[in-house]
Amino acid sequence: MNKINIGLIGFGTVGVGVARALKEKSAQLERKAGLRLALKAVCDKEFRRKRNIKLDKKLLTRDVNKILGNPDIDVVVELMGGIHPAKEFILKAIKSGQHVVTANKALLAKDGEEIFRAAQRAKVEIFFEASVGGGIPIIKSLREGLASNDIDTILGIVNGTSNYILSAMETEGISFYDALSEAKKKGYAERNPSLDIEGTDSAHKLVILTLLGFGFPVKLEDIYVEGIMDISQNDIKYAQDFGYVIKLLAIAKRVDNEIEVRVHPTLLSKEHLLSNVRGVYNAIYVHGDIAGGTLFYGRGAGANPATSSVVSDLIDLARNLKYKSIGRTPVFVRDESIKKLRKIDEAETRYYIRFSCIDKPGVLAKISGILGKHKISIASVAQKERRKARIVPVVIMTHDAKEKNMQKALEEIDKMQVIRRRTVAIRVER
Amino acid sequence: MNKINIGLIGFGTVGVGVARALKEKSAQLERKAGLRLALKAVCDKEFRRKRNIKLDKKLLTRDVNKILGNPDIDVVVELMGGIHPAKEFILKAIKSGQHVVTANKALLAKDGEEIFRAAQRAKVEIFFEASVGGGIPIIKSLREGLASNDIDTILGIVNGTSNYILSAMETEGISFYDALSEAKKKGYAERNPSLDIEGTDSAHKLVILTLLGFGFPVKLEDIYVEGIMDISQNDIKYAQDFGYVIKLLAIAKRVDNEIEVRVHPTLLSKEHLLSNVRGVYNAIYVHGDIAGGTLFYGRGAGANPATSSVVSDLIDLARNLKYKSIGRTPVFVRDESIKKLRKIDEAETRYYIRFSCIDKPGVLAKISGILGKHKISIASVAQKERRKARIVPVVIMTHDAKEKNMQKALEEIDKMQVIRRRTVAIRVER
Repeated sequence: MNKINIGLIGFGTVGVGVARALKEKSAQLERKAGLRLALKAVCDKEFRRKRNIKLDKKLLTRDVNKILGNPDIDVVVELMGGIHPAKEFILKAIKSGQHVVTANKALLAKDGEEIFRAAQRAKVEIFFEASVGGGIPIIKSLREGLASNDIDTILGIVNGTSNYILSAMETEGISFYDALSEAKKKGYAERNPSLDIEGTDSAHKLVILTLLGFGFPVKLEDIYVEGIMDISQNDIKYAQDFGYVIKLLAIAKRVDNEIEVRVHPTLLSKEHLLSNVRGVYNAIYVHGDIAGGTLFYGRGAGANPATSSVVSDLIDLARNLKYKSIGRTPVFVRDESIKKLRKIDEAETRYYIRFSCIDKPGVLAKISGILGKHKISIASVAQKERRKARIVPVVIMTHDAKEKNMQKALEEIDKMQVIRRRTVAIRVER
Repeated sequence: MNKINIGLIGFGTVGVGVARALKEKSAQLERKAGLRLALKAVCDKEFRRKRNIKLDKKLLTRDVNKILGNPDIDVVVELMGGIHPAKEFILKAIKSGQHVVTANKALLAKDGEEIFRAAQRAKVEIFFEASVGGGIPIIKSLREGLASNDIDTILGIVNGTSNYILSAMETEGISFYDALSEAKKKGYAERNPSLDIEGTDSAHKLVILTLLGFGFPVKLEDIYVEGIMDISQNDIKYAQDFGYVIKLLAIAKRVDNEIEVRVHPTLLSKEHLLSNVRGVYNAIYVHGDIAGGTLFYGRGAGANPATSSVVSDLIDLARNLKYKSIGRTPVFVRDESIKKLRKIDEAETRYYIRFSCIDKPGVLAKISGILGKHKISIASVAQKERRKARIVPVVIMTHDAKEKNMQKALEEIDKMQVIRRRTVAIRVER
């Protein structure tokens, strides 16, 4: 064996990037991989759209079965995205004994276990570095570089769109909607950005990070997810006054023999490394029992970072093929010490709470009374500017409080006559 | 094969950490590695000193030949440090067909090529993740995770002691000497800190990073090295006024078909990610042609981070042993497009320059005249507070200037009557 033959499915921006790298950097990649990385076929539904690359026409096909199950093709690179038919394509490749490289986080989040098991049975590799954190080698670091560690915390800014929006709100003082349309204009948000701003994309990535980091398979639907649509400029500003920034975090945390897995806007101290990650960048903080805290940072979105990961995966795969060491690194190793998922009700965090209430004597006493009744103690209070409006914001930072107590307290408080808008509560992480 | 037998040479804090991890985490490590990681022997010169671990006495030996060349020992973990006899021990292990895991950056910086070549000839692995960046998996990321990239820049804060000192000077406003003694008190600086504060330790690590990142073997003695001993509180403060912090950076940069490799105090914009890396932390910024900029951050110093890397190396090695894929990842791949080292004289950077001159009319005109004559143009000037003293600091930020021109200009300027102390010049990186 002196080369591996690659079939590419999905010829969008990442596909073009991968094809270009394989073409333009072929000598250097061969030296690194030990084998030639030969692009043999590219499949897409259409080839009329102009793409910024010149490829031999004979490589192009609209028939996916020229790639899937073709014994001449060693590796299928799936870059079409979406669940169907990507899943069927990948499973067919695997069953045919073809190795797979994919960037498809949505699919792996939904059906990763099934796909990984199929690959293991068929003794083929499935690599997916591009599925989380763009060009950041976080998957490899969790599977290998930090393998000696029992991970206890992963905090990730893993959605570039949301981070761009929150950063713009923070630095430019604009509203969520203005920041969103700015992101759209710059090409950082899709026309329909709901997967990003509702936290779903972060949840997809969190499923993968939790599986690799903690050896714990969590189901997408079991992850608690809150998006950033309700974050207002007020909250960004008040958080800043308290020394915090607001980030959309993907969080997985070991608590005794359980694991908490959640995605939500989070107040982070300005001293926290993640608080300085702005714009479309991604960063993942990993805390392990031996290494302590490490952080991985880079461009999370865009064709190039994903290309970097896909091609690095191809090199990794080539090395395994050359040395006949397919399967040398398990996708994940189940950690038996983690028994179950901890429900969001049981999560304990500090809270930032903003009440919109009528400026009357005794209101604060009443609010704090209700909080106290639900075992929530107050760390600090700020009553913000008294404008002519009768409704004033009262901002409270709490000590650690249990989620279910907080929900009960807020329900009770929001029924008070003097509370005029739904209370905003945002969790705080250290 | 269901286990690998490990011999440990050097039973200091990292050695104890590794032994403890192998003992206390043995079940989980075996699941990860696919083989049992069995500690078979520990060698040191003495065992009287109390160590915080209980090991079977039969494992302990003062005779290194119970490990080196012992056919029962598969892997030698060298944690004694220093050049001799570590080098002879490692070479003997390699010649005996034993694999090696080491944290010995000084040795690899000096004789890495010879050792790597010996390992390749003997078909054994040499792993050394712990040699740079403590627990940060930067070595693996350069060899594998970012393998698809041609790296063009590496900027590293790779010496925790120096970074602690500069951070303390920045945040506490204290002098270099006070910061150094604070670092000593806290155990962040050794009694003889010269390797750290003179930049030598950073240069050791830079040799390794340059070899892996650029596929370019640079000799330690060819690296331009400046330490932090001459950094004054004044410079920290003036740099801050201009929006910069001062960091000791290990820098490798591709410039056309040459490479610049240097270690020196550097002004970094407060917007640069590395500028927020404070205390004993390490961070390495890597810019590749496809991935763009990525950053790796973590605790650089201390027993635990190094332990994390050594044990992760052992897992990696076990996987290669189990799958008989020894040598699957080359230590480095020579990049033929880099032809030679660029001499420091040819380096081009912006400069921060502080002149100590007598406060007389026309001084600034004269200084800028000399700079201009040497093709150095001024970006901004600040004449600092005029105190009663007749000597005032004048701070100039230049545009890009060639090192050799700068040296000539400074030589000329320092001969001026009105210049009363040696002029300070610090390079700026973007």
